[in-house]
Amino acid sequence: MKVAIVMGSKSDYPVVERAEKILSDFGVEFESRIISAHRTPVVAEKFATSAVSNGMHLAGVMAAFTPIPVIGIPIKSSTLDGLDSLLSTVQMPKGIPVATVAIDGAENAALLAIQILSLKYPELQLKMIQYKEKMAQEVIVIDNEFQKEKKR
Amino acid sequence: MKVAIVMGSKSDYPVVERAEKILSDFGVEFESRIISAHRTPVVAEKFATSAVSNGMHLAGVMAAFTPIPVIGIPIKSSTLDGLDSLLSTVQMPKGIPVATVAIDGAENAALLAIQILSLKYPELQLKMIQYKEKMAQEVIVIDNEFQKEKKR
Amino acid sequence: MKVAIVMGSKSDYPVVERAEKILSDFGVEFESRIISAHRTPVVAEKFATSAVSNGMHLAGVMAAFTPIPVIGIPIKSSTLDGLDSLLSTVQMPKGIPVATVAIDGAENAALLAIQILSLKYPELQLKMIQYKEKMAQEVIVIDNEFQKEKKR
Amino acid sequence: MKVAIVMGSKSDYPVVERAEKILSDFGVEFESRIISAHRTPVVAEKFATSAVSNGMHLAGVMAAFTPIPVIGIPIKSSTLDGLDSLLSTVQMPKGIPVATVAIDGAENAALLAIQILSLKYPELQLKMIQYKEKMAQEVIVIDNEFQKEKKR
Amino acid sequence: MKVAIVMGSKSDYPVVERAEKILSDFGVEFESRIISAHRTPVVAEKFATSAVSNGMHLAGVMAAFTPIPVIGIPIKSSTLDGLDSLLSTVQMPKGIPVATVAIDGAENAALLAIQILSLKYPELQLKMIQYKEKMAQEVIVIDNEFQKEKKR
Amino acid sequence: MKVAIVMGSKSDYPVVERAEKILSDFGVEFESRIISAHRTPVVAEKFATSAVSNGMHLAGVMAAFTPIPVIGIPIKSSTLDGLDSLLSTVQMPKGIPVATVAIDGAENAALLAIQILSLKYPELQLKMIQYKEKMAQEVIVIDNEFQKEKKR
Amino acid sequence: MKVAIVMGSKSDYPVVERAEKILSDFGVEFESRIISAHRTPVVAEKFATSAVSNGMHLAGVMAAFTPIPVIGIPIKSSTLDGLDSLLSTVQMPKGIPVATVAIDGAENAALLAIQILSLKYPELQLKMIQYKEKMAQEVIVIDNEFQKEKKR
Amino acid sequence: MKVAIVMGSKSDYPVVERAEKILSDFGVEFESRIISAHRTPVVAEKFATSAVSNGMHLAGVMAAFTPIPVIGIPIKSSTLDGLDSLLSTVQMPKGIPVATVAIDGAENAALLAIQILSLKYPELQLKMIQYKEKMAQEVIVIDNEFQKEKKR
Repeated sequence: MKVAIVMGSKSDYPVVERAEKILSDFGVEFESRIISAHRTPVVAEKFATSAVSNGMHLAGVMAAFTPIPVIGIPIKSSTLDGLDSLLSTVQMPKGIPVATVAIDGAENAALLAIQILSLKYPELQLKMIQYKEKMAQEVIVIDNEFQKEKKR
Repeated sequence: MKVAIVMGSKSDYPVVERAEKILSDFGVEFESRIISAHRTPVVAEKFATSAVSNGMHLAGVMAAFTPIPVIGIPIKSSTLDGLDSLLSTVQMPKGIPVATVAIDGAENAALLAIQILSLKYPELQLKMIQYKEKMAQEVIVIDNEFQKEKKR
Repeated sequence: MKVAIVMGSKSDYPVVERAEKILSDFGVEFESRIISAHRTPVVAEKFATSAVSNGMHLAGVMAAFTPIPVIGIPIKSSTLDGLDSLLSTVQMPKGIPVATVAIDGAENAALLAIQILSLKYPELQLKMIQYKEKMAQEVIVIDNEFQKEKKR
Repeated sequence: MKVAIVMGSKSDYPVVERAEKILSDFGVEFESRIISAHRTPVVAEKFATSAVSNGMHLAGVMAAFTPIPVIGIPIKSSTLDGLDSLLSTVQMPKGIPVATVAIDGAENAALLAIQILSLKYPELQLKMIQYKEKMAQEVIVIDNEFQKEKKR
Repeated sequence: MKVAIVMGSKSDYPVVERAEKILSDFGVEFESRIISAHRTPVVAEKFATSAVSNGMHLAGVMAAFTPIPVIGIPIKSSTLDGLDSLLSTVQMPKGIPVATVAIDGAENAALLAIQILSLKYPELQLKMIQYKEKMAQEVIVIDNEFQKEKKR
Repeated sequence: MKVAIVMGSKSDYPVVERAEKILSDFGVEFESRIISAHRTPVVAEKFATSAVSNGMHLAGVMAAFTPIPVIGIPIKSSTLDGLDSLLSTVQMPKGIPVATVAIDGAENAALLAIQILSLKYPELQLKMIQYKEKMAQEVIVIDNEFQKEKKR
Repeated sequence: MKVAIVMGSKSDYPVVERAEKILSDFGVEFESRIISAHRTPVVAEKFATSAVSNGMHLAGVMAAFTPIPVIGIPIKSSTLDGLDSLLSTVQMPKGIPVATVAIDGAENAALLAIQILSLKYPELQLKMIQYKEKMAQEVIVIDNEFQKEKKR
Repeated sequence: MKVAIVMGSKSDYPVVERAEKILSDFGVEFESRIISAHRTPVVAEKFATSAVSNGMHLAGVMAAFTPIPVIGIPIKSSTLDGLDSLLSTVQMPKGIPVATVAIDGAENAALLAIQILSLKYPELQLKMIQYKEKMAQEVIVIDNEFQKEKKR
């Protein structure tokens, strides 16, 4: 029950860190690595068993080498606002799926990894249900407070 | 080990059928349903346990109601070439991941479902490895034939 | 003669507040709520009678559950400059219209709600005509002052 | 209880006709006109009381001259797949809302007009509820038949 | 030999000012007005004889009412980076041309107005030739200085 | 009173022909040439006095060499639906305006050329006014016939 | 003096064939292969010495493994009109350049390969100059014939 | 063994400087010039022998005049986030290739120039291999340090 996180550059860590936070909260072990599909292709090939990877071009290369699910996080780029990363990650050829989440959607990548693992580990599914309930409660509490503020 | 397929309209079936074909080939049971998040929201809510769903807006609603993984297939629309479907499916808010594949990427949605199930069912992982090998062999055979044709 | 305003997250309030301001100026009562179509889908379903709702995915879900007009405000997102919100809100399937205004167009959403209500409440139509006249006057005054400044 | 439909060119009629069909089904009277905001601006100004108008640039001009709700249908263009029409219709300046529906979304424009009128005419709201129920039933019937076909 | 400049809002003046600067340098008289095609449509119609106008929707309305050339400057919007303004300005229907320049391209709008006037006023054509020569000289001087800096 | 039309390839002639038709109708002389900014750059440079030119990259090169107005017609491309042509034509650097019309907007390019020439030739301005009136009449006639058809 | 051409699927051959034609005309030897970066990643890695490769994701992987120039041809996709292929090919990370040509620009990919080789092989540079001259002559001849046709 | 760098304006120098840095590191001589395809077209034509050029429209004009490889760097523009520069640079007509790199991709333009030169100069190919190895080492070192940090 371990999730591998691969980022293409250390500059992606602020996004990736949000995925680590979620995995920790769920008690899921993970290993985070900085491996570049282009600069260290041989390392990438050896490591290609990751369940979560991020950034342009990277997830696709990972998916080419492994039969296990690969989740892609398109990272917002400095020029085209993430559209290039999104299209590069999601538009994969037939036979090589990459489960793509929103641009910079690190939390959702982590939650998706947890949902996938929860098929095998019932305790994770329980935690996932609690997480959804907590999330709903939080929205309801914020709404209630907001209603009170407005009435004052 | 059953995959639910939900499509928003029967007109999406030609795309969905390609996902069914792959699931059959892998011996994974599936149930295909026509349920609209907008026209039959109550049915959608009741059914929201699908692992594969397709089309704009649909996957997101499914994901809101279930803790299990939801895979979204953006369907090419008649006007904006699928960009609207892609963005509606992939750009989900924090907390509600949808594993998005390429526009009209029904085969990859099925393969992703199989990869997810294979974490629990080792025989599927084996089949997946065989599938990847077969896919590689096919490309190699086509290449060899192409080389021969060119030499003539 | 009451308008329900639903936002998906409290972070949308700075945009929504501009709609509240207009409704207040017109003497139209309103109720603002924080309800998430994805995090609190059951609450959303119960509440789905809103005339103004905002943000991605939200207006569509509201529209699925109510026969009364739903106005959607696409909120500018942090990555794709609002294009994803706009397409998710406006590109609804047949049978489920969402009256979509410009990205972050909270004022226009409020004015549209007022124009809709004014079909039933003649006093609102009168106020709307006055509003348009005032708006025109303001432009004319600014233009006149601008002409004077330039002549100095 | 009359809806004015304005199209910029007769070539838009195939789209507009779908809106007329819905209005007829609901028993709502309508008048369809071919008026160009650019070729016949004076006629446009005189007529500007339409609740439904279509095509690029047109809805905006209508909205400038009338205090009643204007619904815009962006018409798919021959070059940019409707994106230009969509942005021209929906991105209106503050103070001049146009209730925009999907590209070529004539049916939804008609339904929106009916929803707006139904605030004043309770019989229309009843019909709208029946329409939504019928729409849901149709999806359910299609789904049932689809399930039967699959079992054979 | 006078150019009318129309802007839709005083907030556009920083862009428009750059056009005024060029016209002054060429000794071409101009009148700048703040007139909104949507908020002051009647004023707009009366004034519609402008050779330079700016912003979304505005130039098209001007062009509908006048037989003289209308130049459109798409103003960069706060949400879609000017793409909406560009498409609204340039994608005019047959019969109503708007001479569109780059997004925020106020200088080029002024130069285009001067080029148009220079067909009638030979002294302007002479100034235009001198302007192009000066512009070329400036680039050459900057290049020369740059070469010297690099050699140090 | 002569307009030069330059197209980058003979395959653009079906679009350009529509501009020739308008110029003929107005009695404006023209010369149409096939000159490529990239394949025949020296010819292009010599000829660069055109008032109407079309296609990607071409108008910009023409504008670099002449002080007279250059009108650019972005030609719809086989891949990006004309967006590449539009951006290449309209997004010119400061100092080098190209009066850009809609994608494939040959008629409007011709009308713009006529509007520009009409500043010098009053008889053209008269024809332009008649053209606008005729265009308005045509829309009114089509509308009237459409009303009659509907009443039958 | 040999160019390797790699395509991701045999369905890309109609585009690639146009590159082969140009290379043949210049007397440059080439080898065309069908190798998939995703389906046959190990083959791709071994072969990664190509000077011309095509399609999404492919060129980038080739470039990761070789120090020699890699030229990428984005292939027009069935959904997003080639924009996804273009962005995936051209937006490479620092350190891994891919010389990208236009969407489906097979001829230009071949010409670029020839221009690169011509730095080492002077006879190719001579042929390239002749090719450019011939191309210019062809445009001039077409223009002359077009002028004659028009005069008849 | 000299590379010409041409920029359209001195404001592009911060991007171009990164290309100079790489060329220096490889011991490749270069000459940087500020030449505008539009403001100094005659100078541009004379100089058109550059192997690296940058910015919109510029590379295309360079490519028209020279048989040697031209590399284009699309410069991020102030309005459309570089999309206009990218499309203007890469979408060249048949016969005139421009080897396009990523938006603001100055380093990759330099590396591409070096890869091209390395076909003739074996010592550059050696340096290129070392560069790729160093780049891989750097990623590995950063990854190792990152692993250590995490363990603390």
